Amino acid sequence: MSESIQLIPNGSLITATPEEGRQLAVKMARLIIKATQPDAAIRERLRPLYAEDPALLIAIGQTVAIEFTTIAAANNCWKKADQLK
Amino acid sequence: MSESIQLIPNGSLITATPEEGRQLAVKMARLIIKATQPDAAIRERLRPLYAEDPALLIAIGQTVAIEFTTIAAANNCWKKADQLK
Amino acid sequence: MSESIQLIPNGSLITATPEEGRQLAVKMARLIIKATQPDAAIRERLRPLYAEDPALLIAIGQTVAIEFTTIAAANNCWKKADQLK
Amino acid sequence: MSESIQLIPNGSLITATPEEGRQLAVKMARLIIKATQPDAAIRERLRPLYAEDPALLIAIGQTVAIEFTTIAAANNCWKKADQLK
Amino acid sequence: MSESIQLIPNGSLITATPEEGRQLAVKMARLIIKATQPDAAIRERLRPLYAEDPALLIAIGQTVAIEFTTIAAANNCWKKADQLK
Amino acid sequence: MSESIQLIPNGSLITATPEEGRQLAVKMARLIIKATQPDAAIRERLRPLYAEDPALLIAIGQTVAIEFTTIAAANNCWKKADQLK
Repeated sequence: MSESIQLIPNGSLITATPEEGRQLAVKMARLIIKATQPDAAIRERLRPLYAEDPALLIAIGQTVAIEFTTIAAANNCWKKADQLK
Repeated sequence: MSESIQLIPNGSLITATPEEGRQLAVKMARLIIKATQPDAAIRERLRPLYAEDPALLIAIGQTVAIEFTTIAAANNCWKKADQLK
Repeated sequence: MSESIQLIPNGSLITATPEEGRQLAVKMARLIIKATQPDAAIRERLRPLYAEDPALLIAIGQTVAIEFTTIAAANNCWKKADQLK
Repeated sequence: MSESIQLIPNGSLITATPEEGRQLAVKMARLIIKATQPDAAIRERLRPLYAEDPALLIAIGQTVAIEFTTIAAANNCWKKADQLK
Repeated sequence: MSESIQLIPNGSLITATPEEGRQLAVKMARLIIKATQPDAAIRERLRPLYAEDPALLIAIGQTVAIEFTTIAAANNCWKKADQLK
Repeated sequence: MSESIQLIPNGSLITATPEEGRQLAVKMARLIIKATQPDAAIRERLRPLYAEDPALLIAIGQTVAIEFTTIAAANNCWKKADQLK
């Protein structure tokens, strides 16, 4: 695991829109894989395995879904804070 | 992963009804698979594998369940906000 | 995936009792499988695979558990609202 | 799936203690398996497979953990309501 | 499943520190396995399978993570109650 | 499982930034594996299996995602407490 990889782009869970939050969830899921396997050549070799195996595609979907739960909660908290102003 | 695919239809987690929220959960789960495997021909080839393998059908169900947790939370927050008016 | 299948019976997550909420969780989990594999003959052929494979039985249990988390949260919110009256 | 099986013993998620809540989580997880495979003879035949396969033992643990999340949340809510009296 | 095994040490989810909460999560995950397979000799025989199989090590990690979510929530609730005094 | 391993670095879930929270999630996930398999030589032998198997890489990502949910919730609670001052 390389400690030097930034795990959250821009260092924030807050996004302007749900769509951007969803994209962040995808990126955060990928960055854990990158940090666990920092060798780009190996990741490149593994990529077709992900993208053509239904079980792995679904497992990626589950990971993104869990990441998105956290991101949505962080953003909902802020929005509710806004509504209380 | 294609960055150009919209990951949340209409860009919003808010739906008028739980049924529409459930449909959104199904769509969001599918769109992550589409974004991870943007080649429609490959997805078409994989589809029967999903739909006839009990383990994969259940795994899809788990993914939708997690997505729906987030959508339901987002909508509950709004409903509670309504009740406070 | 057939868009015409109703994914939430009665269109509501609210139930009178936890027992009914649990039954709803089971039904919602099944309806995602039905929507992903709309062919009743294929589902009938897959059913014994689910019911006699310990790993699949446990996986079904996990799916129901996640669905029930959402249903319980929706109903708890309402109950708490009642208590505040 | 047999509709006649009671899925939540006593029909309530509320327990006097966390220990009883944990026991309820174990029972609720088992009852989904029972409802999915109502034939006691088949369940009896599958039982040694669960209890001697590390992967299945861990999967059962995950299911109980998810069930317990819901039960704990339900009970925490009530306890907090008590504290507000 | 032996009903006589205590599933939560000390019968409480509340711990003085996050570290103790994490240790509790590990113990609670193990106790479900113990309750599902009460035979110590069989558990001892399975232990090396857990500890040398990467997939099982990760699955144990997921179980602990879920247990810890519940424990952390229970403790956060109390801490917030303290802050309101 | 070695009881002497510290499971949460610095004994706290609170971090200054989301990025540090994410790093904590990675470390907490690893420490459970270390506690379950305390033999460094065996862990070293297993490491390439993790890092070159797509299914295991994704499973690690799911574990980190769950850990991060807890860490984010703990930190959100504090931030909201700050906003109320």
